[in-house]
Amino acid sequence: MNQSSFGNKFVITTWGESHGKALGAVVDGCPAGLPLTEDDIQKYLDRRKPGQGPYATARKEGDQVEILSGVFEGRTTGTPISMAIFNKDQRSRDYGNIAYTYRPGHADYTFDEKYGFRDYRGGGRSSGRETAGRVAGGAVALKLLESLGINVFAYVSAVGPAAISSIDKEERDRNSLCMPDAEAFKKAAAWLDTCIHDQDSSGGVIECRITGVPAGLGDPVFGKLDAALAGAMMSIGAVKAVEIGDGVLVGTSRGSLNNDSFYMEADGSVAKASNHSGGILGGISDGSELFFRVHVKPTPSISLPQKTITNDHQDTTLEIHGRHDPIIAPRAVVVVEAMAALVLADALLSNISARLESVQRFHKP
Amino acid sequence: MNQSSFGNKFVITTWGESHGKALGAVVDGCPAGLPLTEDDIQKYLDRRKPGQGPYATARKEGDQVEILSGVFEGRTTGTPISMAIFNKDQRSRDYGNIAYTYRPGHADYTFDEKYGFRDYRGGGRSSGRETAGRVAGGAVALKLLESLGINVFAYVSAVGPAAISSIDKEERDRNSLCMPDAEAFKKAAAWLDTCIHDQDSSGGVIECRITGVPAGLGDPVFGKLDAALAGAMMSIGAVKAVEIGDGVLVGTSRGSLNNDSFYMEADGSVAKASNHSGGILGGISDGSELFFRVHVKPTPSISLPQKTITNDHQDTTLEIHGRHDPIIAPRAVVVVEAMAALVLADALLSNISARLESVQRFHKP
Amino acid sequence: MNQSSFGNKFVITTWGESHGKALGAVVDGCPAGLPLTEDDIQKYLDRRKPGQGPYATARKEGDQVEILSGVFEGRTTGTPISMAIFNKDQRSRDYGNIAYTYRPGHADYTFDEKYGFRDYRGGGRSSGRETAGRVAGGAVALKLLESLGINVFAYVSAVGPAAISSIDKEERDRNSLCMPDAEAFKKAAAWLDTCIHDQDSSGGVIECRITGVPAGLGDPVFGKLDAALAGAMMSIGAVKAVEIGDGVLVGTSRGSLNNDSFYMEADGSVAKASNHSGGILGGISDGSELFFRVHVKPTPSISLPQKTITNDHQDTTLEIHGRHDPIIAPRAVVVVEAMAALVLADALLSNISARLESVQRFHKP
Amino acid sequence: MNQSSFGNKFVITTWGESHGKALGAVVDGCPAGLPLTEDDIQKYLDRRKPGQGPYATARKEGDQVEILSGVFEGRTTGTPISMAIFNKDQRSRDYGNIAYTYRPGHADYTFDEKYGFRDYRGGGRSSGRETAGRVAGGAVALKLLESLGINVFAYVSAVGPAAISSIDKEERDRNSLCMPDAEAFKKAAAWLDTCIHDQDSSGGVIECRITGVPAGLGDPVFGKLDAALAGAMMSIGAVKAVEIGDGVLVGTSRGSLNNDSFYMEADGSVAKASNHSGGILGGISDGSELFFRVHVKPTPSISLPQKTITNDHQDTTLEIHGRHDPIIAPRAVVVVEAMAALVLADALLSNISARLESVQRFHKP
Repeated sequence: MNQSSFGNKFVITTWGESHGKALGAVVDGCPAGLPLTEDDIQKYLDRRKPGQGPYATARKEGDQVEILSGVFEGRTTGTPISMAIFNKDQRSRDYGNIAYTYRPGHADYTFDEKYGFRDYRGGGRSSGRETAGRVAGGAVALKLLESLGINVFAYVSAVGPAAISSIDKEERDRNSLCMPDAEAFKKAAAWLDTCIHDQDSSGGVIECRITGVPAGLGDPVFGKLDAALAGAMMSIGAVKAVEIGDGVLVGTSRGSLNNDSFYMEADGSVAKASNHSGGILGGISDGSELFFRVHVKPTPSISLPQKTITNDHQDTTLEIHGRHDPIIAPRAVVVVEAMAALVLADALLSNISARLESVQRFHKP
Repeated sequence: MNQSSFGNKFVITTWGESHGKALGAVVDGCPAGLPLTEDDIQKYLDRRKPGQGPYATARKEGDQVEILSGVFEGRTTGTPISMAIFNKDQRSRDYGNIAYTYRPGHADYTFDEKYGFRDYRGGGRSSGRETAGRVAGGAVALKLLESLGINVFAYVSAVGPAAISSIDKEERDRNSLCMPDAEAFKKAAAWLDTCIHDQDSSGGVIECRITGVPAGLGDPVFGKLDAALAGAMMSIGAVKAVEIGDGVLVGTSRGSLNNDSFYMEADGSVAKASNHSGGILGGISDGSELFFRVHVKPTPSISLPQKTITNDHQDTTLEIHGRHDPIIAPRAVVVVEAMAALVLADALLSNISARLESVQRFHKP
Repeated sequence: MNQSSFGNKFVITTWGESHGKALGAVVDGCPAGLPLTEDDIQKYLDRRKPGQGPYATARKEGDQVEILSGVFEGRTTGTPISMAIFNKDQRSRDYGNIAYTYRPGHADYTFDEKYGFRDYRGGGRSSGRETAGRVAGGAVALKLLESLGINVFAYVSAVGPAAISSIDKEERDRNSLCMPDAEAFKKAAAWLDTCIHDQDSSGGVIECRITGVPAGLGDPVFGKLDAALAGAMMSIGAVKAVEIGDGVLVGTSRGSLNNDSFYMEADGSVAKASNHSGGILGGISDGSELFFRVHVKPTPSISLPQKTITNDHQDTTLEIHGRHDPIIAPRAVVVVEAMAALVLADALLSNISARLESVQRFHKP
Repeated sequence: MNQSSFGNKFVITTWGESHGKALGAVVDGCPAGLPLTEDDIQKYLDRRKPGQGPYATARKEGDQVEILSGVFEGRTTGTPISMAIFNKDQRSRDYGNIAYTYRPGHADYTFDEKYGFRDYRGGGRSSGRETAGRVAGGAVALKLLESLGINVFAYVSAVGPAAISSIDKEERDRNSLCMPDAEAFKKAAAWLDTCIHDQDSSGGVIECRITGVPAGLGDPVFGKLDAALAGAMMSIGAVKAVEIGDGVLVGTSRGSLNNDSFYMEADGSVAKASNHSGGILGGISDGSELFFRVHVKPTPSISLPQKTITNDHQDTTLEIHGRHDPIIAPRAVVVVEAMAALVLADALLSNISARLESVQRFHKP
């Protein structure tokens, strides 16, 4: 797989730097016949847009997506769907010491070590803006999942010490921190006010729940569904931990507590008495809700002075001016949904040929 | 990527079921000229072997690896290295109710849902024995890393409530739980005795530290080094969480605490004052120690009676007889090392063409 | 590999339909530090442009490429290079019976059978315009090859019965049929005048010669350099045969005639007394000139009435109006160069890790 | 794709050197539920076996395949199918000057240039014996195709100047040159007698016809079905040209002659009045017979003295002793069938997700 592509059957390739001409994505392998409009994409990109509140940058990105190929008369044609978001504001500006100072917690130093130089404008390829392409591609995957009755729902479950204790789906879309619990939101807001006052930033936690997933998705060894999800989530900048189901709790659990008992429902369907596994057994979906959690580090750009080095290897002190989000997690919620959808779309398409009888049915209709 | 292969340039393909004729691995893309013998592989396979103590199954596997191709006069030739481990004991036996009862916490149900039927003998492809192929392939990767001065060291850091408080590398190889802390081992042993007495099992935690890794490995977007590691670790059966660096702690941390300051060493090398990042920034290695942690669920096969269903969808109660490990984590330590080595070998080979000057130097010697 | 991507290390993904908003390509894996401008791409796209003469369509495409990412301060950054060519003229027009009649020799019927419907405007994804993306991506590869001293030169060697008997590189760029032999061009022109008069079209042959290729490129089994070239060439629409070196002549040849003897040059370099192999032995380049030939079918769109069927499966007679090239081969010359360059760039980057000593030299500088 | 693997969904990985311990193949992605025995594989391997006649080496290989994984109770399980062929005769022998002399027409020189050294025993990885793994894997693909009503039939159509003029399928299996025309066989035999008398060898031509292929296989751009077939065929050692349908004739043809008219059959099926395209339009199968032709070079190992160089770069004269086949083509017939089947199996599995309605039908049964 090349470095900027993801997936085997439903494949996304993203491109673009933060302050370049444009960013975008190419989706290849989407089945023909899926209704798709720019609005289907735009509504997810709008969720990436900074809000009005105090916990998000005031920079008004206003990303507008254009579909350049792969859709004809409102439906996908089976050929690559190319999407682009042009940067409206491309004024030359002074990037100051960012050009030659390595910001702690950022990829500046590692890019220079890898490539010899870097596009330092706004973080270049390593900016959070890179995720716009993922969200555009993920929106196509989400549209496909929707047509199959699969629903993906992510939310911020904790901001620093403020954690949710209930899930109200509509509340998630009402507050600026994507938290599905109004009480937790208040505590989180107070905590962030403290962080902002301290010229500091905060970490957060995102949870994702996916319903309607058929049993049988994922492969037994390297292509486990949870392995694909873990890789996808950890590929989102700032994510430092991924838990499936009970996650880190399994280390201190016992078999009798961690196993999920199967039983038969009255309607003849298979059910589990609990879901410690997060909906995946042996790397393959078991038909229950998929559940996982990702931990997002605090915004590394803070106003506090920080010790670091320059690109000619001199010690220095860095002060990052301008406005930065005090927390990354809320804006990453839609990215988590996008990446989860890409994993599932790929698994769904890959799985169709798992049994001879399916292959025969398809080719001998 | 096919389901049973892993990697892009240094590629392993594994095959084999628990109670089939043999298990094995094919390694493709290993550079020519690497000294390699069966002993280099065998020493890692021996670490998978059940010990004598009370915390491992008594079944004497005694896996012996054979190299079938790809090595000539003691060195790799650049062609595929095929390795096989033949099962010595292939007596037909009675698998009892395993054949038609879905064990909770196992892949029995999900395999049937995916493929329509399964090789139920000893767990088939989903058995822990599947990792023998990974360890064989990982041993080749470890030999390659060794030739480049890179060292991979994993260990059990916690067994249920018993966690290590120090790291003594030699102690790891002295005790049957792979814990690098003799005091913690004693507490862990006591905890496992309780679990065994209760006909139950325990989870555990594994940590991995890798030194000598050059800066610049990994790719900026989907091919992040931590994404590859997370996917690799989560592909190991029973792993339910992966943390890089500070991992789950980042959610409650602040930017000023989580950022690692750069500074110049007296010898002119770049250093970091801390390593909250676990040695990876923006998905690319930063030259400091790689550090990550995986959480392993308790052995799902326990002697306590469990409610479940049969493959013809009847409720039933399952009692699993015979001897099972009360904990998985210790035997997974060498698998963690193998998978980490496979990720790094792949990243090392992929990275060579990142800069034009390297490509030119190679092709115009 | 996904259907619209090509390559393993140096990867191109193309997108776009003939009459859509735009066409383009994303190049991923190009080493950082390669000088690259839009002019470097444009000069190859201009060679695809229809000429003024009688043997090319009068439609003035005037494709202008834009580089949207991956280049900073005039050099590639190692991140994906996105290139787009916007269609200037997007008027709605009447596509007449093309929308529901299957043109013989075209992909209309097979697209409908595969996808259920198709973008019929100008051939959609199966138009010759699809190659614009390949040429844009190939131009980046050609720039990389140039920096390594490798030269790719393709030309039309035959038009119907008119074949070249000598190679004058400059003559190729002087005449509208890309033939490197002025005499042969005259005969070819006369032949094409006959075809046009007959409302018919002609096939042609393209040859490609590549110099400066180091020995050692390509892999021994499935990844043979000639296999990659053959696949790449046959992926160009209208190509129906590929020959490497002596090609179809080998079937009637003898070993003593077909083998190329090695000998030592006075300067200590290895040489071959002949080049029947076309520069490849056992799938690996041998350091001599790469030579191959492709056979291009006649333009399937002809003015003569043709029997065919409609998409609701009725017999009909089709008359294709408008202007069409009487021959495809000349405009495919630059596409052959582009695809050959993509194969070689990929092989060059892949080959760097073939030997341990190279890997060690890179990682221990 | 790694160098020794082939395919995207139905993937074969081969391994093994001519005189190593064993050769083999791993097939990954084969649907679960396909009946498969060792006899299904063996019958194809037996066709590779040298015959009794004068036109094949007397060495009695007697390859016996063992299935080591992936089959349970007579059916494939969906997990990797590992197959091995152990070399019975592994005596140490004197390889004489082969170890340090570069044989013209072989990969000796290019291997050394690529890898720095090589396993010279019997040609190592570049021996014709490498194809045993392909045939084993191809046999699984052929079994899958058979279950879908697809038939693959290849044969030698010419040996030097002796070409067939009719096709008698049973005759192919009666004579030692795999020619489906008894008259042509006699002429071919006479020609080969001359070659043998002259201590020389002959080239040949293989044709392949595949019936029962549904329309819609293959992808529009890089993944064209003919591109995959061309790459697959050219990856067979000694193949130097591939033609699809009319092949090299298209260069001198006209559109009116080369286009195949569609018409409706009385039974309501779509048909073509001719098959110049070889069953593929725009890279996608059109439902008619697939037809292609490959040209195989003469055996490079001949008894006549040849000028060449040693691996320390000295001019020398080589005399190859021992018995060698005077022609390669007949033994490559089954390899052509195997590779064609691998391409088709892959295309069949990949194609199932081309339309949304198929995906929906599968996931909402």
